[in-house]
Amino acid sequence: MTTLAFLGLGAMGAPMAAHLATHARDQQARVLVWNRTAGKAEAHAQAHGTQAATLAQVAAADVIFTCLPTSAEVDEVLDQMRPHLRPGATWVDCTSGHPEAATRQAAELAAQQVTFLDAPVSGGTVGAQQGRLTVMVGGNAAALDAVRPHLAFAGKVVHVGDTGTGFAVKAVNNALLGVTLWATGEGLAVLGRAGVNLSAALEVINASSGRSNSSENLIPQRVLTREFPATFALGLLAKDAGIATDLTQSVQGSAPVLAQVAALLRAAQRVVGAQEDHTAALKFIEAMNETVIQ
Amino acid sequence: MTTLAFLGLGAMGAPMAAHLATHARDQQARVLVWNRTAGKAEAHAQAHGTQAATLAQVAAADVIFTCLPTSAEVDEVLDQMRPHLRPGATWVDCTSGHPEAATRQAAELAAQQVTFLDAPVSGGTVGAQQGRLTVMVGGNAAALDAVRPHLAFAGKVVHVGDTGTGFAVKAVNNALLGVTLWATGEGLAVLGRAGVNLSAALEVINASSGRSNSSENLIPQRVLTREFPATFALGLLAKDAGIATDLTQSVQGSAPVLAQVAALLRAAQRVVGAQEDHTAALKFIEAMNETVIQ
Amino acid sequence: MTTLAFLGLGAMGAPMAAHLATHARDQQARVLVWNRTAGKAEAHAQAHGTQAATLAQVAAADVIFTCLPTSAEVDEVLDQMRPHLRPGATWVDCTSGHPEAATRQAAELAAQQVTFLDAPVSGGTVGAQQGRLTVMVGGNAAALDAVRPHLAFAGKVVHVGDTGTGFAVKAVNNALLGVTLWATGEGLAVLGRAGVNLSAALEVINASSGRSNSSENLIPQRVLTREFPATFALGLLAKDAGIATDLTQSVQGSAPVLAQVAALLRAAQRVVGAQEDHTAALKFIEAMNETVIQ
Amino acid sequence: MTTLAFLGLGAMGAPMAAHLATHARDQQARVLVWNRTAGKAEAHAQAHGTQAATLAQVAAADVIFTCLPTSAEVDEVLDQMRPHLRPGATWVDCTSGHPEAATRQAAELAAQQVTFLDAPVSGGTVGAQQGRLTVMVGGNAAALDAVRPHLAFAGKVVHVGDTGTGFAVKAVNNALLGVTLWATGEGLAVLGRAGVNLSAALEVINASSGRSNSSENLIPQRVLTREFPATFALGLLAKDAGIATDLTQSVQGSAPVLAQVAALLRAAQRVVGAQEDHTAALKFIEAMNETVIQ
Repeated sequence: MTTLAFLGLGAMGAPMAAHLATHARDQQARVLVWNRTAGKAEAHAQAHGTQAATLAQVAAADVIFTCLPTSAEVDEVLDQMRPHLRPGATWVDCTSGHPEAATRQAAELAAQQVTFLDAPVSGGTVGAQQGRLTVMVGGNAAALDAVRPHLAFAGKVVHVGDTGTGFAVKAVNNALLGVTLWATGEGLAVLGRAGVNLSAALEVINASSGRSNSSENLIPQRVLTREFPATFALGLLAKDAGIATDLTQSVQGSAPVLAQVAALLRAAQRVVGAQEDHTAALKFIEAMNETVIQ
Repeated sequence: MTTLAFLGLGAMGAPMAAHLATHARDQQARVLVWNRTAGKAEAHAQAHGTQAATLAQVAAADVIFTCLPTSAEVDEVLDQMRPHLRPGATWVDCTSGHPEAATRQAAELAAQQVTFLDAPVSGGTVGAQQGRLTVMVGGNAAALDAVRPHLAFAGKVVHVGDTGTGFAVKAVNNALLGVTLWATGEGLAVLGRAGVNLSAALEVINASSGRSNSSENLIPQRVLTREFPATFALGLLAKDAGIATDLTQSVQGSAPVLAQVAALLRAAQRVVGAQEDHTAALKFIEAMNETVIQ
Repeated sequence: MTTLAFLGLGAMGAPMAAHLATHARDQQARVLVWNRTAGKAEAHAQAHGTQAATLAQVAAADVIFTCLPTSAEVDEVLDQMRPHLRPGATWVDCTSGHPEAATRQAAELAAQQVTFLDAPVSGGTVGAQQGRLTVMVGGNAAALDAVRPHLAFAGKVVHVGDTGTGFAVKAVNNALLGVTLWATGEGLAVLGRAGVNLSAALEVINASSGRSNSSENLIPQRVLTREFPATFALGLLAKDAGIATDLTQSVQGSAPVLAQVAALLRAAQRVVGAQEDHTAALKFIEAMNETVIQ
Repeated sequence: MTTLAFLGLGAMGAPMAAHLATHARDQQARVLVWNRTAGKAEAHAQAHGTQAATLAQVAAADVIFTCLPTSAEVDEVLDQMRPHLRPGATWVDCTSGHPEAATRQAAELAAQQVTFLDAPVSGGTVGAQQGRLTVMVGGNAAALDAVRPHLAFAGKVVHVGDTGTGFAVKAVNNALLGVTLWATGEGLAVLGRAGVNLSAALEVINASSGRSNSSENLIPQRVLTREFPATFALGLLAKDAGIATDLTQSVQGSAPVLAQVAALLRAAQRVVGAQEDHTAALKFIEAMNETVIQ
């Protein structure tokens, strides 16, 4: 019987693990769940018919999924799980992690005959609940094919390259999210100062060439409404944009716009608050322009 | 009988004027067309059953449409048409013009009892051919309502505010087009240097939060294919992003990302060529990163 | 007898006009002074043995000096002085003005046979008091030579090109002041977060290749001391950096770093306050980095 | 008898080692020199009365100086020297290294009771020849005091903080060099397009608030003359600005201008050539503006 383990039952991880549980019932597989706060794991296990477990127990699974805030937390659990890992296992890290951490972790795990796949996800909490996440995977393609049937939370799975490239693509995607959010915010702030009706402006942009996910969804739903619902934290977006900066450095590339936006998101995080929704970065743009985007 | 005039039969103007001609037949209206190169106007008139005319003749129309490269060309025709304008006429300027020019031109025309509407369009040559352009209009709302039946080339008409705001929204939209194009180019250049499969990366981004019109349409169709078909010139995009910079200055706003991208697009224009397709800006990013985005 | 007029007795203008008064006594010339607040002109006249005058009176002078906040204020006085100007006079505008305003004002004045020189100054209030300002002059070189003996407040006079170029050089100089101030502030904020002794860091930088007027003078004297004495307002620096942006636009140049700093200075003005000393822009950098530069 | 070793006899290291040799004669100390190209070490030893040595031999010195291109080359020699290091020795790394490398190397050496000081220098080849370099030192202050008498190439020695802070200050200094060079280049390119006499403009700026080491020395001597003498390579400046970016990331700071300039310098390196003088970055600005700065 195959044992699957899921570590990290946060806003994304909890619904992902729920899809894993449903899937496992069909497959007669066993699912173990772990969370830093043990009570959360127990509640999840009870709700979904799985089993809450210790780090030593989850370490012995055939497929280990992690979905933690950053690669640092993956390092922490890996440290404790190392003595208990099973040769032949696969570690699927769905964290929005760091490509350099992936390279290091993959090498460490390979020494114990465990295969590491960096497999971050995109689609937000809604995509996680619907089991329609996009998974971008770096690492060995055959290893991906072997675990692909277990990616029960995925709507689309794309192999993008060697170890670390999954994290790289995720970082760049989120940096682009930051860019479109920020630049559209700047544009609306300036238009607002010029006396333009901002809903009308967004309607035009969304029927035109300047449109993006930010202009079509995030800003109308979260900013113009002044709701800023905290689903994806500004501090995490700033972290991801920072990973894109690190990636650019590591390949000695030149990405002045991504770099500038990463710096501005970090500033927004410091001024507005790391725990606020990522769209609250536009409150910083509002202060910079003494205007309100509404 | 209503007389409609259309000035500027370029890549956008020619199909727009054709829709006007079709519409006029239904309305028993008369359509005059003018182009700097007279032969082009005559050919268009013959093809669409309208009438090629001089600037003095088009100046006497009830509704005057202009679709020229920049506000400077509008100033030039306005100078020659001034003695012949009719009180009560409406001038609908579909140029991607300058908000400050709109304010000045509107005031000059008001002195002759002609109403000016800045009414730039979005949707590209395809939208023009299909008669499904988005028109963003600044100026008097009642004047817009009066000419609205004649906007035969429009799929959507949005009133965005007072004189100049149509041009302002168009400039910001195109600046955002420039931002998404440029930033996505940077991200792909960096990912390419990191060994990522760029088609796979774009597939992921387009299923994720970093997507935009540039990632969904322009880059797959024009850059990855290495075709860069010249439909909208890089020099015009740089000009539009520059108008967004001027707008920011005029309202004393702060838009560091729009400003940086405007500067980089201008540099790309100088290095790659003003007549190249706007997506060829990515050739400059490729040089900056010694890589090819493919 | 030559009549000299000085308009604008602010922090810079008052000591400049005082040097003019001293010079005029030697030359048996007459000096008229004007200020928006008339009482200030009367007090200055009494203190320096000159004569407070109306706009109509100063308009009839042989050499008219203006030193006002922006070109807009120059336009205002010019409007009222126009009927009283004398053919053959020279207007020396020491305002940190706008190149486009210079071109327009020069043309208007030329129609009345008055020669316009844009002649902004650098050196701060200390340089003004010592009569050692640097004057950068755009316009006719012979006209400059004719008034050169009256530039009693100057330590150095440099002819930099045609009308408007004096303002252009001043705008670029102040933009560079903004760049060095801002970038050094960023560097110190980051070093402070890294636990570096900032006085030691500045000592090193000032003996090294990264030094500038900002690192050598402004930051040690005004920021590390936390004094931020208000001698040159942040709002005026943001205005000058904005003129450099306008200049870049007018020549269709590409200056991404000047553009970004201009945008950030505008944001700092909005968040920190337009009336604060220009070095208080670093308070915004401190907020962006949650640190204090001391 | 104290043994001093100097590794890395490049453009900076060679004159630094020469000063060490002179100093050692006074102190009856012995100096060993090493260079990757052994012939260079032998020639230097012969010229200065020192001794060319192997890595094993220099490893046994009391004070080991390194002056290599990057921390990567320091890692390489350290690897080979490790078995031969003497407890109680001090390693003074004058490389423009990476703060994170310093932390790692200091920890490794501490395990062998060798003290690491990061001690990069500033002052260029001229300062090295004159023995008047500025040395910025991170690490244990007492260890610095102990080796201070041997810093024969220094004009000024400043302790700036703990391990890594010497490299951090050097990186920020060089990033500021990059900023002033780049921004002044932008300003001159724009002024040149506006028809300004650039020598006159620089004369003004250097008597005004926008002045910097770049405007006072580098640009007049190297750019306006079109000489671009290759003393400090553009690739190394881009590397140093990149270290400042890494530093900003590691402290989660926000430095948008330093980040932008680092990206632009990297692009300039790719387009102009890594081996060109750092001032040749302005050739990239010239291309971006289709102008020549002269």
